[in-house]
Amino acid sequence: MKKIILIALLFSCCIAVNGQQNTLNLMPVPKQLTAMSGKNRITNKFTVSVQGNVADTVLFKAVNRVYQNLNRKTGLAFGQQYITPTDKNDSASLIVNVKTKAEAGIDVNESYSLKATEKQIVLNAVTTIGALRGLQTIIQLCDKDESGYYFPCVVIEDSPRFKWRGLMLDVARHFISYEEMKRNIDAMAAVKMNVLHWHLTDDEGFRVESKLFPLLHQKGSNGDYYTQAQLKEIVRYAAERGIVVVPEFDMPGHAQSWFAGYPELASQPGPYHPGPRMQWQKEHPEIKTPPVTSIADIVANMVAPTFDPTNEKVYDFLDKFIGEMAGIFPSGYMHIGADENNGQAWKLNPKIMGWMKQHQMQSTDDLQRYFVERVYGLMKKHHRTMIGWEEIYNDKLPKDAIVHKWIPSDNSMIKSYGMANDIAQHNPVLISEGFYLDLFLPAYIHYNNASIAAANNPNILGGEAAQWTELADNNNIDGRIWPRAAAIAERLWSPANVTDVDDMYRRLYVLSNELDEQGLNHLTNYERALRLLTNGEPTEHLQVLTDVLSQVKGYRKLVAMMMRAPQASYQTTPLTSVSDVILADPATKRKFRALVKLYLEKKDKNAEEAIRAYLQTWKQNDTYLQPLFAGNKRLMEVQDHSKNLSAAAAIGLEALDRMDKGITDAAWVQKQSDVLTVFEKAHYETEIVVIPEIEELVIGHTIAKPEKYSAF
Amino acid sequence: MKKIILIALLFSCCIAVNGQQNTLNLMPVPKQLTAMSGKNRITNKFTVSVQGNVADTVLFKAVNRVYQNLNRKTGLAFGQQYITPTDKNDSASLIVNVKTKAEAGIDVNESYSLKATEKQIVLNAVTTIGALRGLQTIIQLCDKDESGYYFPCVVIEDSPRFKWRGLMLDVARHFISYEEMKRNIDAMAAVKMNVLHWHLTDDEGFRVESKLFPLLHQKGSNGDYYTQAQLKEIVRYAAERGIVVVPEFDMPGHAQSWFAGYPELASQPGPYHPGPRMQWQKEHPEIKTPPVTSIADIVANMVAPTFDPTNEKVYDFLDKFIGEMAGIFPSGYMHIGADENNGQAWKLNPKIMGWMKQHQMQSTDDLQRYFVERVYGLMKKHHRTMIGWEEIYNDKLPKDAIVHKWIPSDNSMIKSYGMANDIAQHNPVLISEGFYLDLFLPAYIHYNNASIAAANNPNILGGEAAQWTELADNNNIDGRIWPRAAAIAERLWSPANVTDVDDMYRRLYVLSNELDEQGLNHLTNYERALRLLTNGEPTEHLQVLTDVLSQVKGYRKLVAMMMRAPQASYQTTPLTSVSDVILADPATKRKFRALVKLYLEKKDKNAEEAIRAYLQTWKQNDTYLQPLFAGNKRLMEVQDHSKNLSAAAAIGLEALDRMDKGITDAAWVQKQSDVLTVFEKAHYETEIVVIPEIEELVIGHTIAKPEKYSAF
Repeated sequence: MKKIILIALLFSCCIAVNGQQNTLNLMPVPKQLTAMSGKNRITNKFTVSVQGNVADTVLFKAVNRVYQNLNRKTGLAFGQQYITPTDKNDSASLIVNVKTKAEAGIDVNESYSLKATEKQIVLNAVTTIGALRGLQTIIQLCDKDESGYYFPCVVIEDSPRFKWRGLMLDVARHFISYEEMKRNIDAMAAVKMNVLHWHLTDDEGFRVESKLFPLLHQKGSNGDYYTQAQLKEIVRYAAERGIVVVPEFDMPGHAQSWFAGYPELASQPGPYHPGPRMQWQKEHPEIKTPPVTSIADIVANMVAPTFDPTNEKVYDFLDKFIGEMAGIFPSGYMHIGADENNGQAWKLNPKIMGWMKQHQMQSTDDLQRYFVERVYGLMKKHHRTMIGWEEIYNDKLPKDAIVHKWIPSDNSMIKSYGMANDIAQHNPVLISEGFYLDLFLPAYIHYNNASIAAANNPNILGGEAAQWTELADNNNIDGRIWPRAAAIAERLWSPANVTDVDDMYRRLYVLSNELDEQGLNHLTNYERALRLLTNGEPTEHLQVLTDVLSQVKGYRKLVAMMMRAPQASYQTTPLTSVSDVILADPATKRKFRALVKLYLEKKDKNAEEAIRAYLQTWKQNDTYLQPLFAGNKRLMEVQDHSKNLSAAAAIGLEALDRMDKGITDAAWVQKQSDVLTVFEKAHYETEIVVIPEIEELVIGHTIAKPEKYSAF
Repeated sequence: MKKIILIALLFSCCIAVNGQQNTLNLMPVPKQLTAMSGKNRITNKFTVSVQGNVADTVLFKAVNRVYQNLNRKTGLAFGQQYITPTDKNDSASLIVNVKTKAEAGIDVNESYSLKATEKQIVLNAVTTIGALRGLQTIIQLCDKDESGYYFPCVVIEDSPRFKWRGLMLDVARHFISYEEMKRNIDAMAAVKMNVLHWHLTDDEGFRVESKLFPLLHQKGSNGDYYTQAQLKEIVRYAAERGIVVVPEFDMPGHAQSWFAGYPELASQPGPYHPGPRMQWQKEHPEIKTPPVTSIADIVANMVAPTFDPTNEKVYDFLDKFIGEMAGIFPSGYMHIGADENNGQAWKLNPKIMGWMKQHQMQSTDDLQRYFVERVYGLMKKHHRTMIGWEEIYNDKLPKDAIVHKWIPSDNSMIKSYGMANDIAQHNPVLISEGFYLDLFLPAYIHYNNASIAAANNPNILGGEAAQWTELADNNNIDGRIWPRAAAIAERLWSPANVTDVDDMYRRLYVLSNELDEQGLNHLTNYERALRLLTNGEPTEHLQVLTDVLSQVKGYRKLVAMMMRAPQASYQTTPLTSVSDVILADPATKRKFRALVKLYLEKKDKNAEEAIRAYLQTWKQNDTYLQPLFAGNKRLMEVQDHSKNLSAAAAIGLEALDRMDKGITDAAWVQKQSDVLTVFEKAHYETEIVVIPEIEELVIGHTIAKPEKYSAF
């Protein structure tokens, strides 16, 4: 291991030096950056002075957080205690200059400029929020060399490409704790995201306390929900970090949890209780529906618990509920979901069908449209801009309703409602198409999101990374979202021409460590989970293997889980298998890939040595790992991978030897390639991610293998 | 590394088998335990049924937590969802049978009995709280062998030796967050502790929101305090785990933070602001006091901010404040501190001296006694039992006031107020003497606490582990307290004759992993801190070194820190040096020590191999670590240790070779011993902990070196 690490380190430094110089370690990359020579050395005399509009608690809190962050990072024991308006000092190490106090908001000016010379750093911003963004840049500028910590001298002018850069987090399938929410908000702030889209209700759980309708949280959850005090605290916490909270209350479908306490609002009789969508139908075998033989059938024919749009009491209820929530979420936006309603619950209710006939409605699509229109009216009444998933879109949709695109245009299962640019001719658009983190795709896939690349309509407000939580809970959520979400944050903030994937990955893993330092648990929970898997025995060798595994892509893991434990709810299925705890886009893969590329394209000798060190470690690892498998069911799921990784590494080493000796042997290449293809096979929803690179070593050159991922 | 780990593992299993069989992995050891043959296998059909008094929310919450804990630990995807009173089933895998609903309290019956056969586990308890204790035993019973998870068949009868088993946590010097508090309460529950003694105010910070006197938290803190909602939530959270919260509001001394908002209550004029005790005096050079040349001088002569006991407004204020706090903390106990008041602030106030004369008081001790009496009256009024540190003790102290012993009887700096047994003849006594976790002592020192061993007066209620936080913050607090506090918890729960230190350590490190699984951050924060120290570079070799370092003992680290950064407050001094982040009683030391003992006393060949593997790793380590030192100030603090550890390991290896060859050479032994003595030297408040064992290898036999630790 030792050699690998040192060489890999050395090597990653080389990449940084030879690579796209002007990005430094910044993520997202600023709009304009001019690197200058010289370094601003950080000492224990480091001081901050806030100038301009100083009656701004949010600004001072942020400045103090950054000050203590740097204090802790450098360990220098800075002399200033709590920075206040009285600390005004023109010769401070860092001057923060803000013109106008402003609150977090979609339309707030987020620009800032920053100049770091050897003597002083000056951060200028028009608003508080711009200053908050610039302060994050300052944290990321802090670097270290052989003389200690410093800021590189630099001039930055920065502002975002899109004004809506969100993270959608589902807390219904698995409840995500108040503490976890705060950790994720901190990470969002680090990469300049500005919208937390909080998916608070779904079939599986109603996660907000309602004082008007207490049965919503009492019967609609397993006891895990946020109190109103907690909701307000999260809103405040986010606002202090320049982040707006947009709540989603999904309707008319995905609404089973509402009906646990208020079955009279549903299209079919109760009782209801929170749980998977299919639950209600399974409990009602008397309902005759078309047979289900595929996932497409489920999508089309499932009778999912759905609001009754023909019941006036529904709108009275929603009116009051929306009013209550508007008092908690001041952002001015509210998301109504409105996705994935196949109309089956309506078709099976004669009263609803009669009502439709009476109102000359041809299809349940018309009824869905009617429902959305009515809810739009309630939103207007409560001064909220309505957002809905793209299913709300139609040519009569009011022009200020925001359409949230999520269905990939090339999807065969569910019909997309149009391309983002086309929808944007009629309505403002948010893009989550291509940004689904729960599909376990590598970061670069999201980074290259074609939908964003093609976005040329100013009515496209931006987008959101989306994390659904059927397979994520408090213990693995950080690693599900981060660091990959940072690549999406960069895509939404940085200029469209920032597209260097290798440089993105270099910065992504620097940021990943930075987030770890700041308290995000993506790395620590991974390590903790490995300890659980080995029952407290050393995890060193297990981690050698798991560092090169990732989950199968798309919904394959979700489907497999539902097959394996159909009786378990999402909420109580332990997410402790290898496929639950590993990271989706392992750093080792990217490092190894870069080395193989460098070696094959430039015959770099250092790269070869580093590759050999990796391969040696992998080759030996199975022997060390074997003793841990005995009686350990969860670990046995990767027993084949362990064997295969060792065998693949041996092939890789032989390939290097043959190249060194100049041997070419097409038969050998073919035979090894066939073997390696077998090793690519998934076992228990995990797969080895470094087989393609070993295959490249075998054939002796890099191959641009199209990495095509589909949801199923 | 590989060989070490496997051998050490193998070996620790052997210890378990040959050692004190009947403790299993339980910590604390139960009163009576009969191990039986057979194992109760855990499958995904594992179910729980609660019987007896079932109208008990706290019990059901606890049962569900334990159920999900086992579900997660085993990864079996249990079928039961949320266990409720309707799940009554006589053939459930686990029957929990509780007679009486009861709330957490000092005098509640905590006994339980437990019988695990191959078919079923039955837990019987008189009260809810007894059941909670028994449920923790069930978690600890869950073990794993080559066929999977199981409970060993066993019969247990259990109840605690002492009824007061506390953790005292100072949140004034460094604020400890709400989230951290919960984590620590979880860990306390795991080892059956029942009192959280919360040191909420001190010179450095006032950490509770007061609605009657808002300047207390507003001016008395740096903004870090618990809101009343949070305080109540912590009280509830603890109560649900069978833990009582006893708040401490320190007075008349240690009270600077009170006076920031209300200077009129103090004995000297303001202004005041929260900070180190010495601060006020430093800001008032006009105050002429005897010169300070030693810590003893400081103790005797410092003018510390102190309440004015002659001011009636003080009692009016405290009356209202105590009443407000009584509404938040329902335990019936309140701690008034009353420690370390040297009377200087009073002596320097002519008005106070005049009042004393007028009231025929001879000394400031009389005035302290008067103050305590008055506060005792307020406590009575608000139906609270008063607790104070031992300085409240005198022969006229009301019989129901609890005296909290903390001053070691052999201390030369501060006079003890008597032995626990003697004080207990007059008043109930709590013992923290010998339980100060902030002195960085190894767990066995606390485990062997003579003061508890000698306790033979039934008026000794129990004791408390104590963690002061000058050197601990949110990032390292878990590792400061745990796992060592578990040894204290066992001392207070288990029978007095449970004294096997080796077996205690075996179980302590099993528990340590268990606490990690459950979410305590003592291990993860250690690893995270190492990543900060290496700036995200691999920490493997650093950890080889830091795993065998511990802090210098007593207050030496505190004094050094105050010398080095006199301008910094505790709250903002970054605690990121090696001495801040390492664990106080590293597991490696105990494992190595056990191996050396086994080898030297029994010439065990496996032990020798494991020792050699450790020594080889240490010997090579310095070479690997060297590249990390360059420019890294914090790491350079252990550069000498790194060199010395490698050199010491080489000596150890040579000693083994010589023993194998039967060479005896007194001159060589003497020379190496001298060298090793030099390696024992501390650098930057850390020391290598395995030098004594290497010295034993050199001289060829174990030596019972008295490990004597003093505070200074």
